[in-house]
Amino acid sequence: MVVWSHYLSIHIHVTWNLFREMDSMSAKEMINTANEKAMEIMFTSQPKWVDVQPALKVIPGMKKNLILHAGPPITWERICSAQKNGVAGAAVFEGLADSVPDAMKKLAAGQIEIDACNNHNTVGSMTGITSASMPVMVVKNFPYGNYSYINVHEGPSRTRLTYGAYNETVHKNLIWLRDVLGPALEYAVKRMDGLEIIPIIARSLTMGDECHNRPTAGSALFALAVLPYIVESDLEKSEIAKIARFLQATEHFFFHLGMAAGKAATDAMSGTEFSTIVTCMARNGTEVGLRVAGLGSEWFTGPAAEIEGVYFTGYGPEDAEADIGDSAIMEVYGLGGFAMGASIPMAYALGGMASDAIRYMESMVDITTARHAAFKVPALDFKGTPVGIDIRKVVQTGVLPIIDTAIAHKDGGEIGVGIARPPMECFVKSLEAISNKIKTAVSQ
Amino acid sequence: MVVWSHYLSIHIHVTWNLFREMDSMSAKEMINTANEKAMEIMFTSQPKWVDVQPALKVIPGMKKNLILHAGPPITWERICSAQKNGVAGAAVFEGLADSVPDAMKKLAAGQIEIDACNNHNTVGSMTGITSASMPVMVVKNFPYGNYSYINVHEGPSRTRLTYGAYNETVHKNLIWLRDVLGPALEYAVKRMDGLEIIPIIARSLTMGDECHNRPTAGSALFALAVLPYIVESDLEKSEIAKIARFLQATEHFFFHLGMAAGKAATDAMSGTEFSTIVTCMARNGTEVGLRVAGLGSEWFTGPAAEIEGVYFTGYGPEDAEADIGDSAIMEVYGLGGFAMGASIPMAYALGGMASDAIRYMESMVDITTARHAAFKVPALDFKGTPVGIDIRKVVQTGVLPIIDTAIAHKDGGEIGVGIARPPMECFVKSLEAISNKIKTAVSQ
Repeated sequence: MVVWSHYLSIHIHVTWNLFREMDSMSAKEMINTANEKAMEIMFTSQPKWVDVQPALKVIPGMKKNLILHAGPPITWERICSAQKNGVAGAAVFEGLADSVPDAMKKLAAGQIEIDACNNHNTVGSMTGITSASMPVMVVKNFPYGNYSYINVHEGPSRTRLTYGAYNETVHKNLIWLRDVLGPALEYAVKRMDGLEIIPIIARSLTMGDECHNRPTAGSALFALAVLPYIVESDLEKSEIAKIARFLQATEHFFFHLGMAAGKAATDAMSGTEFSTIVTCMARNGTEVGLRVAGLGSEWFTGPAAEIEGVYFTGYGPEDAEADIGDSAIMEVYGLGGFAMGASIPMAYALGGMASDAIRYMESMVDITTARHAAFKVPALDFKGTPVGIDIRKVVQTGVLPIIDTAIAHKDGGEIGVGIARPPMECFVKSLEAISNKIKTAVSQ
Repeated sequence: MVVWSHYLSIHIHVTWNLFREMDSMSAKEMINTANEKAMEIMFTSQPKWVDVQPALKVIPGMKKNLILHAGPPITWERICSAQKNGVAGAAVFEGLADSVPDAMKKLAAGQIEIDACNNHNTVGSMTGITSASMPVMVVKNFPYGNYSYINVHEGPSRTRLTYGAYNETVHKNLIWLRDVLGPALEYAVKRMDGLEIIPIIARSLTMGDECHNRPTAGSALFALAVLPYIVESDLEKSEIAKIARFLQATEHFFFHLGMAAGKAATDAMSGTEFSTIVTCMARNGTEVGLRVAGLGSEWFTGPAAEIEGVYFTGYGPEDAEADIGDSAIMEVYGLGGFAMGASIPMAYALGGMASDAIRYMESMVDITTARHAAFKVPALDFKGTPVGIDIRKVVQTGVLPIIDTAIAHKDGGEIGVGIARPPMECFVKSLEAISNKIKTAVSQ
């Protein structure tokens, strides 16, 4: 609240003028037409999982000494503690440094580079750490031809690199993902001739998932889809059984493919001139970055907020990193908090009742453009989820998007779940930017 | 309605007297204490899947020339068409006859015998056909030591013996179940040291299942639990992959274990003297049979009703067998129609909205004894499902239990889903019987 009030006082005059200008018939029409176009792209996007390959081989601009992280780009000096640990751990895993302290030194010196996942058509949950040799799942958005990438989920442990934790167990597991699970998934997806992601998401919404913090049903459906093919691979039975147990236990596995689907669909929307629809909300624990369809890949940032959370036993807000991860792509895509009505168990885990699940979700109607054409919620008689966050509506109503998220410990590890809101600052800044674009266009 | 009105006119005087007698303090107390005891048995029952064996080897009273069917016992002359076809098919499958006509002749002559599954601690869905060599899943009710049995689900085809269909494909599939899937499941369950059924049911209720007509999530969780062990068996990879695909496609697989769990728990309640709680509702397409805890294994029957159904394309009520199957054990156990609030998609498939799902379920509160201690419904803020049908309350309120069921074609095959109600006659008859017992006890 403090941040927003402060920002409000600065910007109230600016935004007032802004709306006056954007309220002209021609400006309104330009924006609305653009938004319709952007939403059509979202609804006609057909993200399909098509491959698993080492990051270096497929991610555009990936380099051996580059480590990708969640959120908007950030300098090494300002990077938050969990992400710092994750980046350093990945550097050791990649053989770029002998130890975590050595990695820290090389990172500070710029010998090892960092960049935002989102700058490389990639998304990553929590710290989002993605390095050269890690296997990434490749998603192709069929009608538009663009690709997105995400690393393979590390499994059910709360201690994993994604949460900024790095130790011998984490290291060994990363090797298993790289050498066994990644190739097994590659074999399966090729034998399957790819896997459409939207039908699994749509179905899982009828099975208690909101697909962000609760992707349980989707992960089960996914596991049952790939396992027959993995059984038929050349792997030893003991290794196949290990994979089967891993997929059974990793209830968040499909969440990563959901994120990649959201990334593929929203990347296709990016560059729709004059559109005020959000294409990306990403957090690095220090800042939240926003991207808007009409403003391409430009970042609009504000400070990352504290999460209103429910903590696992033994942890509290004092242990927590601020809002972190690219996973808010799910909310941008009409899932997570925007689909909470589909997941009363998730709302319940956050301290809410059935009515709160509906309320959370429906409060997003005021800041969105449409009901999702494919993502439907049983409890609302199969109405679509609210989708297409319009920065105009966010600034006008003061209602900030709800992000249903997990909480990382500052020293690494998962310590809870909660609800976060991105700062108003990003929305006001991006609205100013698009207003300027429109002013120029209208006056020409 | 015709049936009930007719029966009402006969029984209104009888039941009036009945209630007067049962309303005495001592009678009420006896019944309520007995019902508490019966419900305690239900809630402390821990049904665990422990084995898979040929029916002949484990089902009490099973014989080579005996074929079990769903519903109360019935003579060959009165058996409905779908069940007749199923029994005859099983006789051919078992080598008891050369052809279906030959089987019909031998069945009419009593050379091949039939009996109700429920008379042998067994349940069967739809026609319920269970014969000697078929593999059955064995469930043990741990605190009480009793066992229940159910055949292995035949798979996703609408044409199967369970639906009274018998042909070369059905026959071949039955052989595969007997020779491959049954033994594979036996291997898995023994390696797993058994599998508790209640946790899967409870979890699936948070994933859109009502566990009778929609057991999708439960089946997925079950498949993921057994597959790692089946992978480790001696089977060829190609056979394991076939099993993995079969379990993925058979979304009703876990429904059978749910039924066996219900049977194990309610059999343990059976014989609780003076209890008016229903322990079994079973239908054979001709009659519905009721069993009540205080009346042991005695059957109280009435005519099987038509199902209010939604039919698959190309079918209608004229094709349909009347209400059939032992699966109403799910409703007796607080699932199916009694848990519809957990499965809005199921209510929707039946033509209802979200509010109807809740309404269906909550209308059962008036005829039940408790909220289930373990089966909880997210949409009702995790209230338990109504459970423990009290025959007194059914007769007093006139509200008949809802059974969420499938529809069989008269000539075999699955043709729809719908809602059925058992006839009031069973409830009135059983109430008379228990009233007589109580009168005798009170007057002594």
